[in-house]
Amino acid sequence: MVDGVLDGRSCADSIMFDLAKEVSELAELGVYPHLAVVIVGDDAASHIYVNAKESACARLGIKSSKFALPESATMVEMESLINELNEDIDIDGILVQSPLPAWLDEIALTEKILPSKDVDGFHPVNLGKLVQGRVDGLLPCTPHGVMKLLEWAEVELTGERAVIVGRSRIVGMPQALMLSRKGADATVTLAHSRTEDLANLCRSADILIAAVGKPEFIKPDWVKEGSVVVDVGVNRVTDENLAKGYRLTGDVHPAAADSARLISPVPGGVGPMTIAMLMTNAVFIAKNRKL
Amino acid sequence: MVDGVLDGRSCADSIMFDLAKEVSELAELGVYPHLAVVIVGDDAASHIYVNAKESACARLGIKSSKFALPESATMVEMESLINELNEDIDIDGILVQSPLPAWLDEIALTEKILPSKDVDGFHPVNLGKLVQGRVDGLLPCTPHGVMKLLEWAEVELTGERAVIVGRSRIVGMPQALMLSRKGADATVTLAHSRTEDLANLCRSADILIAAVGKPEFIKPDWVKEGSVVVDVGVNRVTDENLAKGYRLTGDVHPAAADSARLISPVPGGVGPMTIAMLMTNAVFIAKNRKL
Repeated sequence: MVDGVLDGRSCADSIMFDLAKEVSELAELGVYPHLAVVIVGDDAASHIYVNAKESACARLGIKSSKFALPESATMVEMESLINELNEDIDIDGILVQSPLPAWLDEIALTEKILPSKDVDGFHPVNLGKLVQGRVDGLLPCTPHGVMKLLEWAEVELTGERAVIVGRSRIVGMPQALMLSRKGADATVTLAHSRTEDLANLCRSADILIAAVGKPEFIKPDWVKEGSVVVDVGVNRVTDENLAKGYRLTGDVHPAAADSARLISPVPGGVGPMTIAMLMTNAVFIAKNRKL
Repeated sequence: MVDGVLDGRSCADSIMFDLAKEVSELAELGVYPHLAVVIVGDDAASHIYVNAKESACARLGIKSSKFALPESATMVEMESLINELNEDIDIDGILVQSPLPAWLDEIALTEKILPSKDVDGFHPVNLGKLVQGRVDGLLPCTPHGVMKLLEWAEVELTGERAVIVGRSRIVGMPQALMLSRKGADATVTLAHSRTEDLANLCRSADILIAAVGKPEFIKPDWVKEGSVVVDVGVNRVTDENLAKGYRLTGDVHPAAADSARLISPVPGGVGPMTIAMLMTNAVFIAKNRKL
């Protein structure tokens, strides 16, 4: 690990290495995990994410099937596809890439996925177990990835003050539960757009987790000396100097690295962890269903 | 409202008054809510709670049926009773009074209850909706009661610092989600037994919610001047001077009332609210199922 870098790529690589071994052991038993990926429309970033997930599957020897629907897809079409995939005995995990067009109800569709095939860990049944302090189910990939990354870097959590900025159902809310639970034992504050004096709150954090989706929103002087910073954001910022016309940046200003003891880079931090946790879920489901 | 008192009894009474009207309107439409209450063994406190719930039903004109099992009840017996109640078309809500004997797996039994009949709001499906920031489902009664009590007393939540002490699946965890969500907008810190410097953390709270189950655990000087204190604890403390041999006390030392702007008493604070929210859920289920 490079000094000061919370290196998600390395951590994810070691998880992927172990998973590849597990997948080949399962193959000897005739068990082949199979992931279904549903994508709607032409959003470029979404296609990049889906491709990354499919190539992670390929790298592990996990079968993946892509279902690409036109931008015009209706709720009825989506529901009937999800029903088919629920009933398909070969399919283990089903994921619907977000964001979806505005007229599709993402939360309603998430609930249509069988909880046992909910590879993203977004179904209420799987989220609800987190409220019970349980981590024995299908965990949402990004907050689970953050937990694994902190564990891998041997970051002490017990009694530490964690501040999470952002209260999304995908990251902030489940992250607060996972960091608070017995066994993790951090003291967590969940901050958001209505939080007052956010700068000072962030400065109180031993562990700061930024998940707001705003480029470089967390300023360098909001970061406590010697703290651990996890940057969940992946934002595109226009950059005329680059051939592709943009650069990727996180929710934390890069100069925060001067104060932080450890900070996750963007890209190469939480992103690869999310994918590794998705693969972990896919293998977990296949073992439960097919072994 | 008595000055300085967060009067759960009055608030609950006004909710019960509205519910009674709703129940009689439903009766005119031929809809009769019906609650099933399951209790195991002879724990005196549990029987007191169950009686309180049954008399709340009686007060509203809600039918209740008690299923009292001996201390020796097995998981198989409990599951078969829950299945029967799930399938009974007349039963709307099913609640299993806790605590259960140690050999009964409370969480596993909770999952056996149909989510649509989960009147306590403890099923993972119902808890999971809270992680999604939703409050359109069956909400867990105690944290929901706390929210209603704060709303009734016109306590401003937006941007306020809330500290919850205790991370149970029944109160602390769901309370954190409910106070944090969009529309409630408090900045919540969830504290627990591994939290360091709890006294100072409590002193930072505009709204302090104590749910640890330890008598008078929160000391008077932990309470910020002018803050709002909600005491969820109901603890029995031996008192030889009383005929019954004990008195009830909360998780907060009574002298905290000197600093707090508002404080909920024990008894007469959160307790009646919990029951009013249970009744609210029972009526909600009956309307969904029978109307």
